[in-house]
Amino acid sequence: MTAMPSAPAVTPIEARPEDLARVVYNADGLVPAIVQEAGTGTVLMMAWMNADTLVRSLAEGRTVFWSRSRQEQWRKGDTSGDRQLIREVRYDCDGDVLLFVVEQEGRGACHTGERSCFYRSFGGAPGDA
Amino acid sequence: MTAMPSAPAVTPIEARPEDLARVVYNADGLVPAIVQEAGTGTVLMMAWMNADTLVRSLAEGRTVFWSRSRQEQWRKGDTSGDRQLIREVRYDCDGDVLLFVVEQEGRGACHTGERSCFYRSFGGAPGDA
Repeated sequence: MTAMPSAPAVTPIEARPEDLARVVYNADGLVPAIVQEAGTGTVLMMAWMNADTLVRSLAEGRTVFWSRSRQEQWRKGDTSGDRQLIREVRYDCDGDVLLFVVEQEGRGACHTGERSCFYRSFGGAPGDA
Repeated sequence: MTAMPSAPAVTPIEARPEDLARVVYNADGLVPAIVQEAGTGTVLMMAWMNADTLVRSLAEGRTVFWSRSRQEQWRKGDTSGDRQLIREVRYDCDGDVLLFVVEQEGRGACHTGERSCFYRSFGGAPGDA
C-alpha cells in the first residue's frame, strides 16, 4: 500500500482583464460561485462573490466569498480550517455565474460536517444523510 | 467494442412535502438551480426556478426554469431539442440552492453550441474554447 502524496499548494490565478470584464454582477454587486471538487467532480457548495472577493480569490488561490447575512468577506477555512485551494475558475456564457474547481481541505465544504452542502435530495437518493 | 445502451427515460421524482418545504426562495421568489451531467459530473449550467417550475420539473422529470429576462417559464429543450432528463435533485444545507443531476440530450446545455455553459476560464485552462 502506497501513501498518496498530498501537498496541495496555493496557486494564484492570473486573470486576463478581458475575462474579468465579462463578469456580470447582480443589483447587489454579487455573482454566484459554484464550487466543485477537483478529481471527484462533486458539487460542494454555492456561495456569492463580489468583484473584490473574486479578485482576492484569484490572487490568493483560495476561495473568498461575500456573506450576504453578515455583509462581510468570508475567507473559506479561516475559522474551520477547511480551505478550498483553487485549481481552475470558469465563467458561464452570460458571465453571470462562476465555477470554481478546488481541492477541498479538511472535513469538507459544509458547516454541518458533510463533505458537500448538497447532502439531501428530493425523492431520496442513495447516500442521503 | 460494445455499444453503450442509451435509452434515457423520463422519470418523475416524487418529492416529500417536508423536503419541498425546506426550499428557500429569494425576494423574487426564485432559487438557483445548478445542473450537473450524470456520469461525467460536468457542471453544465445554472439557471433559476420558482416554486411552480420546481414542482413541474419534478413532476415531468425534465428541467423547467424561470426566465428572468423574459419573465416566463422555459422548459429546457422545447425549442432546441436539448432536453435534460432528471436523474436526481438535491438541495443544499440552507435550502437556497438546488442541484439537478441530469442526462443531457442533444448537443449540450449551452445556447452557444458548447456542451457546458462554463466553456471559458480565467487564466486559461486546457480545453478552453
